Amino acid sequence: MSASGPAFRAEYACSEACGFRTSLWEVIYRCPRCGSLLEVAHDLEALRAVPAAEWKRRFEARFGQARLPHASGVWGKHEWVCPELPAEDIVSLGEGRVPLKPLPRMAKALGLGSLELKECGVSPTGSFKDWGMTVLVSAVKHLRARGVPLRAVACASTGDTSAALAAYCAAAGIPSVVFLPRDKVSLAQLVQPIANGARVLSLDTDFDGCMKLVQQVTEDRGLYLANSMNSLRIEGQKVVAFELAQDLGWEVPDWVVIPGGNLGNASALGKGFQMLHAMGLISRLPRLAVAQAQRANPLVRSFRGGFSELEPMKAERTLASAIQIGNPVSFKRAVRMLRAFDGVVEEATESELANAAARADREGTFTCPHTGVALAAVEKLVAQKVIAPGASVAVVATAHGLKFADFKVGYHRGTLADVESLRANPPLELPAELGAVREALASLGEGGP
Amino acid sequence: MSASGPAFRAEYACSEACGFRTSLWEVIYRCPRCGSLLEVAHDLEALRAVPAAEWKRRFEARFGQARLPHASGVWGKHEWVCPELPAEDIVSLGEGRVPLKPLPRMAKALGLGSLELKECGVSPTGSFKDWGMTVLVSAVKHLRARGVPLRAVACASTGDTSAALAAYCAAAGIPSVVFLPRDKVSLAQLVQPIANGARVLSLDTDFDGCMKLVQQVTEDRGLYLANSMNSLRIEGQKVVAFELAQDLGWEVPDWVVIPGGNLGNASALGKGFQMLHAMGLISRLPRLAVAQAQRANPLVRSFRGGFSELEPMKAERTLASAIQIGNPVSFKRAVRMLRAFDGVVEEATESELANAAARADREGTFTCPHTGVALAAVEKLVAQKVIAPGASVAVVATAHGLKFADFKVGYHRGTLADVESLRANPPLELPAELGAVREALASLGEGGP
Repeated sequence: MSASGPAFRAEYACSEACGFRTSLWEVIYRCPRCGSLLEVAHDLEALRAVPAAEWKRRFEARFGQARLPHASGVWGKHEWVCPELPAEDIVSLGEGRVPLKPLPRMAKALGLGSLELKECGVSPTGSFKDWGMTVLVSAVKHLRARGVPLRAVACASTGDTSAALAAYCAAAGIPSVVFLPRDKVSLAQLVQPIANGARVLSLDTDFDGCMKLVQQVTEDRGLYLANSMNSLRIEGQKVVAFELAQDLGWEVPDWVVIPGGNLGNASALGKGFQMLHAMGLISRLPRLAVAQAQRANPLVRSFRGGFSELEPMKAERTLASAIQIGNPVSFKRAVRMLRAFDGVVEEATESELANAAARADREGTFTCPHTGVALAAVEKLVAQKVIAPGASVAVVATAHGLKFADFKVGYHRGTLADVESLRANPPLELPAELGAVREALASLGEGGP
Repeated sequence: MSASGPAFRAEYACSEACGFRTSLWEVIYRCPRCGSLLEVAHDLEALRAVPAAEWKRRFEARFGQARLPHASGVWGKHEWVCPELPAEDIVSLGEGRVPLKPLPRMAKALGLGSLELKECGVSPTGSFKDWGMTVLVSAVKHLRARGVPLRAVACASTGDTSAALAAYCAAAGIPSVVFLPRDKVSLAQLVQPIANGARVLSLDTDFDGCMKLVQQVTEDRGLYLANSMNSLRIEGQKVVAFELAQDLGWEVPDWVVIPGGNLGNASALGKGFQMLHAMGLISRLPRLAVAQAQRANPLVRSFRGGFSELEPMKAERTLASAIQIGNPVSFKRAVRMLRAFDGVVEEATESELANAAARADREGTFTCPHTGVALAAVEKLVAQKVIAPGASVAVVATAHGLKFADFKVGYHRGTLADVESLRANPPLELPAELGAVREALASLGEGGP
């Protein structure tokens, strides 16, 4: 796995290009000069010393690795992710290498050339957060190996991030801490970090109060901050773009559609495609569409104003709870990416997201509500002819529907607020008689499933 | 992917060796001569025309396939699974190729050389049933392509089997039917097949009544029966053994431990290792241990009597609900396998299974209760010195814990009946003050996570 030949390097750089750069092995989250987010900058010249065809060959050969930590879609691209991290410090649960699931019936009905789901939820902790967290926790393991006195890793999150943080830390034997607002989060939402042994702090405040406290506590540098301003996670998330291109034989679809809340994921995806393009592994860029819940749509509002300044809003309660964010931390990065990718932004109502999720499920997947937002955006962008007839479209499915069983149950019972369940499939109640059963099955196979 | 060179063949044979054989493309579930289960018999002589080293090379090369349907751990072993099924009839969701997750701390504490979980729940529908269902539904697609008038596929199941059946049928566009006892199954248990568009029949009877009706209805041969007496599923399930050996560089661990209910999975695993051994890809067989819940332990009782005749029992309610089976359909096959593998059988109480599951979770996995049964059996077999110090042990983890969130919540709340939650990790309630938070974190990193 380790790099042979030239030495590959990456370092932190200010995302607003103020000129600040420093080592990845500094414990730092923002530019000390201008306060902007940092990003990881790779030495592309060194990477280009290896021809594109050779990178493809290496990536393909590694895709079939059987043993952890190398049996990972992320670490098969080690040199493009975190080149100086020693292989022995990798903390992997086998993330990545997820199916690209075609939805041929939905594609046909929409008049698309293809519609496919990159199933990032078929993953150890059930969400796409695993792709980034493996990089962050591996870096922490390496920092500790270098003698940096990090006692634990902390985040404030009610969902997928804390689940991924706790699982990777548990695998590495590194303590993790999750900050949560008391009485605002159910034990069911927390059961993954609890089971994985995180120290879960239930605090007498709201989510913003938790965020403020976790930032204060991590100022002591003995606690490492895992929230999404940490740009190491972006390096893992961007591998979704690499893997999507690899799935398609080093081609890209016409459109890639992704749900957006804090907008780090949209930034990561764009960064991945840009890197593939700069390195010559793909010959064109896809167009990007970011999909938001109508009830938490600050990027939609900005887009409608020609990417006007972010106006933070109060996000309202939505089924797409993980993107219920009114003041996205990666707004600037995401707008830059959307401009670079001739991108668009669309929104989905509660009914639209729930019905789009149910539509995809009929083809054998089990979508989360956020993926429903992205699929509803596809339907709307096709209707508006922004996505042209015959186009190829890939949607990034961000979590497994098993994390949202209540959403599914409510949809098929028809009890979700503000949702008209157009595709509810309730059980048929029957007496236990052969004749009644045969009758109920008589129409099967006539109109498809 | 398609076989080159010799023609590989497989057919149905009576599992009790009465001599009956017939084509895999017959719609048949039991031996018409003696009523025994059927099994799929491969032409090993034809397969042996390809040297073992060449099979290893092919299997390794295919492991990195990126596109469905070939991006599947099952169909990468096509010739060994269902050689005459045309590639165009494969129905795959990207099953298999799951992580082998080491539990180094638990291994060390038990004095084992290694303890690893084959994470079969990191799968499209969240359980190991995907491995077998891809074969069954692909065969149905092929039968339909051959003109066999199969209108739908049916099963009686409250859990993983109906979820897998519905998902694979939805992907293939083939109608599926699930038979269930009314008022005995919650919508949450059913939400996967409902979402995937199965026709779910809620019948005014118990589970045995459903099983009887599904068998009656599928006698008309227009409905195909997907329950576990269907031996096509075994052909997919056995690939877990292939993949485990491949993960370990074509070696086997000293012990493989698996939870057992209907016992089809234990039979499949044994069949897989026997095939690897007969084909020269591994040089020795592992020992097998089957683990049952104490409340549903007919195989344990037989084992204690020197593999005495099966005495069907009434299985009592257990957290390990998928193996709450008192009259296992694959009993004879499983006993034959256990004898061939110098196998043992162990049981776990409710407390033992729940605490063993929680112990593994602390290393970054998220176990289902059935995997907890298997892990508890490992603890007990080590204590009894049946599993020797220093041994290498692999446990087949059968489902993702996300399917059992209530089990996890109940454990960490301490509210599960008959379970003493020794490893509960409840949240810490704190005021939103920096000092209090710092104090709560002061001990972090001193005793591990």
